[in-house]
Amino acid sequence: MSKVAVLGAGSWGTALAMVLQDNHHDVRLWTHKEEQKKMMIETKKNEKYLPNIVLPSDLKIVDSMEEATKDVDAVVLVVPAKAIRETCKKLQPYLHDNLLVIHGSKGIEPISHKRISEIIEEELTGTNYLDIVALSGPSHAEEVSLKHPTTVTAASTKEEAARIAQDLFMNQYFRVYTSKDIIGVELGGALKNIIALGAGISDGLGYGDNAKAALITRGLAEISRIATVLGANPFTFIGLSGVGDLIVTCTSVHSRNWRAGNLLGKGKKLKEVLQHMGMTVEGVRTAEATYQLAEKWEVEMPITSGIYEVIFHDKHPKDVVDKLMQRNKTNEMEDIIRIWSNRYSH
Amino acid sequence: MSKVAVLGAGSWGTALAMVLQDNHHDVRLWTHKEEQKKMMIETKKNEKYLPNIVLPSDLKIVDSMEEATKDVDAVVLVVPAKAIRETCKKLQPYLHDNLLVIHGSKGIEPISHKRISEIIEEELTGTNYLDIVALSGPSHAEEVSLKHPTTVTAASTKEEAARIAQDLFMNQYFRVYTSKDIIGVELGGALKNIIALGAGISDGLGYGDNAKAALITRGLAEISRIATVLGANPFTFIGLSGVGDLIVTCTSVHSRNWRAGNLLGKGKKLKEVLQHMGMTVEGVRTAEATYQLAEKWEVEMPITSGIYEVIFHDKHPKDVVDKLMQRNKTNEMEDIIRIWSNRYSH
Repeated sequence: MSKVAVLGAGSWGTALAMVLQDNHHDVRLWTHKEEQKKMMIETKKNEKYLPNIVLPSDLKIVDSMEEATKDVDAVVLVVPAKAIRETCKKLQPYLHDNLLVIHGSKGIEPISHKRISEIIEEELTGTNYLDIVALSGPSHAEEVSLKHPTTVTAASTKEEAARIAQDLFMNQYFRVYTSKDIIGVELGGALKNIIALGAGISDGLGYGDNAKAALITRGLAEISRIATVLGANPFTFIGLSGVGDLIVTCTSVHSRNWRAGNLLGKGKKLKEVLQHMGMTVEGVRTAEATYQLAEKWEVEMPITSGIYEVIFHDKHPKDVVDKLMQRNKTNEMEDIIRIWSNRYSH
Repeated sequence: MSKVAVLGAGSWGTALAMVLQDNHHDVRLWTHKEEQKKMMIETKKNEKYLPNIVLPSDLKIVDSMEEATKDVDAVVLVVPAKAIRETCKKLQPYLHDNLLVIHGSKGIEPISHKRISEIIEEELTGTNYLDIVALSGPSHAEEVSLKHPTTVTAASTKEEAARIAQDLFMNQYFRVYTSKDIIGVELGGALKNIIALGAGISDGLGYGDNAKAALITRGLAEISRIATVLGANPFTFIGLSGVGDLIVTCTSVHSRNWRAGNLLGKGKKLKEVLQHMGMTVEGVRTAEATYQLAEKWEVEMPITSGIYEVIFHDKHPKDVVDKLMQRNKTNEMEDIIRIWSNRYSH
């Protein structure tokens, strides 16, 4: 049995806390929202984020970050990407040696273009915490809370750290694979949201399965391309945090990014879409950051650029699709094979 | 303008003939079914395979294979995998030098375990035809006939041959990429049907999106694994004939393989399923051939083996899923990276 703090009680944080509790760990779930905390303690439910799911009776809902992290072996950060820096600042005073830091957040920071683990590393200074592990994969939180079979990847530059995370979470309905490619796993989780926007746009335009599959596949090729330039292993993108997550996000009408794209495809402008959604659409932020990264590293990303043009420059989605279909004739995988081979021939 | 024979007037053959006709080639569409030929000539429709679609008025529906192939620059074979050998035998007398042979069939031959292009090569002897190209990708025929944006891969060991096929087919709604990896492209197209069966089984069991995404992703990893052992480039599986085709097949309720799997997941036996479907389920044949290949080459394929057990040994799907979830803890991509690196370090 390990002691684990879960910081963030959205749907994914709560579902992960339930898995850990199922594995008989001593779990402390923390949220910065006072009202939500009270509701969870009183009703034994997290009605807003996991409707109708009864929380395990022994799951501790704690009052403070201090209480959550006292003597724990691992901290699981599950807050929105934009809240990671702030949450780490709050966590910093409670860090101790040999603490494993796991996160389940997806995104890239605007301007700095940092991945989540890079932000964590920057903020958690002054102690010898063990290592950072990214947990990512195709996983609707509701299904995990219902104990439906689910698989994810635990990635860390130190494989031993990934293995500890695997041991904490793995059970008969939650299968965890390890990976050493934290760059690829984090970029896959973040960049897939751009492709989900694109899939929504394609569906919004009334195009069919062929067009959507093309967009997902060629989108995957270009996110693998930039990720490989940034140090990822392209094989990661055949995996759970690449293709797997992409499939779940692009084929689910529950995906926020897909829904935002769908409205854009139907001719709505970004401002209207964001008003209509009333919440953060991670893909919009990520599309901007990735567009800048592609420019900086001179990587061709026609789909990302097209989506960027639709979102930020009011280009008509149909014109963007037509332009994508009429690009020069090309070989399918030449670029990525070249980038990958170059790395290993030096 | 080129002269092209399309042999086989199912939905895919007809849709490809329409694309070629749209590109102003001289196209001759041939079917061995006398009745269907008459109907197409009389009604200008292929009602059984592409309901409600009007064929281009200048598309030639020809009487014989001889008429179809006279002086043509290319032959496009689009018959079911099990009819390839027989069709090639019929075609053999009409071959001539510099003829390009393109095929759009998917499957592996039982017992011999040969790919489509290997069968074609075996049967088309005695002339200097140019080369064989495999055309594959995420493409519902109906959508192509409606000119919805579609992308496919043209693969040949000789890139020049793939480029000729690209030139023949490519237009503003049908985008063709070239590839040198015909082994990967053909195996992707065939083996994806096993995974589609599995996706159907998962849905039939009532599991959710997480389970299906896991099955598709881990299925993709294992078909990449065996294909790489058989000489394919694993990157092909991130492409249109891999992931792309897999997404379309596994998420469409129109897929025969998915439907067969769905019935198996709901507890029906293979015999009942095949009776109920009343037509060939390619994935069943391919699962058997691939299971044998995995045994022969000692490649671990837990999902294919599980599906094989469900189909041929009446194993309960739920037991198979439970077993898959409880396998040893493992690293996600180690195997395929090892196989691929080994090949290039020798």
